[in-house]
Amino acid sequence: MTRPRLLITGINGLIGEVLRDPLAKSFEICGLDSRPPFSERVFQADIADLGEVSQVLDRLAPVRSVIHLAAHSAVDTAWESVLRVNIQGTRNVYEAARRCGVQRMVFASSNHVTGAYEGFAPNLHLHREAEPVPISASHPIRPDSDYGVSKAFGEILARYYCARWGMESICIRIGSVCRDDDPTTDPRFLRTWLSHRDLVHLMECCLSANVTYGVYYGVSNNKGAFWDLSNARAELGYEPRDDASRRMAAQAGDSPSACS
Amino acid sequence: MTRPRLLITGINGLIGEVLRDPLAKSFEICGLDSRPPFSERVFQADIADLGEVSQVLDRLAPVRSVIHLAAHSAVDTAWESVLRVNIQGTRNVYEAARRCGVQRMVFASSNHVTGAYEGFAPNLHLHREAEPVPISASHPIRPDSDYGVSKAFGEILARYYCARWGMESICIRIGSVCRDDDPTTDPRFLRTWLSHRDLVHLMECCLSANVTYGVYYGVSNNKGAFWDLSNARAELGYEPRDDASRRMAAQAGDSPSACS
Repeated sequence: MTRPRLLITGINGLIGEVLRDPLAKSFEICGLDSRPPFSERVFQADIADLGEVSQVLDRLAPVRSVIHLAAHSAVDTAWESVLRVNIQGTRNVYEAARRCGVQRMVFASSNHVTGAYEGFAPNLHLHREAEPVPISASHPIRPDSDYGVSKAFGEILARYYCARWGMESICIRIGSVCRDDDPTTDPRFLRTWLSHRDLVHLMECCLSANVTYGVYYGVSNNKGAFWDLSNARAELGYEPRDDASRRMAAQAGDSPSACS
Repeated sequence: MTRPRLLITGINGLIGEVLRDPLAKSFEICGLDSRPPFSERVFQADIADLGEVSQVLDRLAPVRSVIHLAAHSAVDTAWESVLRVNIQGTRNVYEAARRCGVQRMVFASSNHVTGAYEGFAPNLHLHREAEPVPISASHPIRPDSDYGVSKAFGEILARYYCARWGMESICIRIGSVCRDDDPTTDPRFLRTWLSHRDLVHLMECCLSANVTYGVYYGVSNNKGAFWDLSNARAELGYEPRDDASRRMAAQAGDSPSACS
């Protein structure tokens, strides 16, 4: 049986690297990135250039689904860069995908779309509360940065392409994905960590769920987490298995198999 | 007593022309536009150029409030144009205003932020319903166009500048403002009309209300209107006096003073 084709933009970034092998079980994975390594399945393109993105999609057609990760991902990225890559670039990916008949887009949004609920340094009150009231995807957005604004823009665009063009669009406000999958290096990560294993599971849910549009948080089952996963559980079937506090305890020697 | 200074971007457009004289009773009006006529109070600037916008604001400082109207306002404006003027341009106006200490921004958003609720031609179902369920500002956005996406972006930016920088930001999803103030030329206008008189009153409310952030529809008291004004009435004190159906009846000779 032929596996449906899945294009991952930004495949050479951290999240793309985590996803590519596990998702290859069910999908024929192709990639697009501005940075090497390139191969016969991973193409070089600058997403800020519609022509380059379209060329990759035309060459790969038919592509069933796209996971759109390519972006400047640092929260302090300057406006000019988020405008070019995260705003213009995301619009290019959506537009090229629409023209090529892509059925489903999974957009890597960010928790920074609602980051201002956490407060601003040095008053990051949400990080200190023992049992914070979770922020849900139905709360009004409250970006904390130009970067957060650019990710909220992507959610709007997703809504538009779904309403106007029928493209299924699922937006994930991704928590903290760590290169070494270790959430113990920063107190905030203990609440915002999304483990590699839960990330893969979440993306599998996004690619198969019977949903046409939605916004969901992507976070592990951490003690003290301040994002509401109820719609992700109900609509996507997402069931996170990892908990940063257990990982922390394991490192301290209390529980040798916290993440098994 | 000195009147506080109010900058209107896009002052030479239709809405700017309606507002400038009535608002001059309470404010010292200055303007910025890309098109003439210019004067000692109306400066030429391309809002897509941060330097030009900043220069105008620096020259006028202190400016208490800004009404940001400058934009491509046609719903079918091409993406490249809305990106440059409505997205980059709006960000420039916010950023220049922040740097100059502007206290309050009134952003001319648009009903096209939720236009997809009306359906798409030829299935514009909302226009035919006798008693449509009104769309409120707390409904999820659902843009109908690149233009609508760009206005939703402006609302996000307003939210960010308020949360991060304390700039009071009021967004008005303006209905149909007609050059000759006549809503009888299009069946949709009978529901979406915002009369010149109600527009002026609404902007007066926006400039004085005790509100730090909000999104409101701007429409007259039309029979069959499908936008909810309850938050505008409660939070801004907006009380529209005109009704397109009475204007229509007046033209048909039923009521000679429908809009008095």
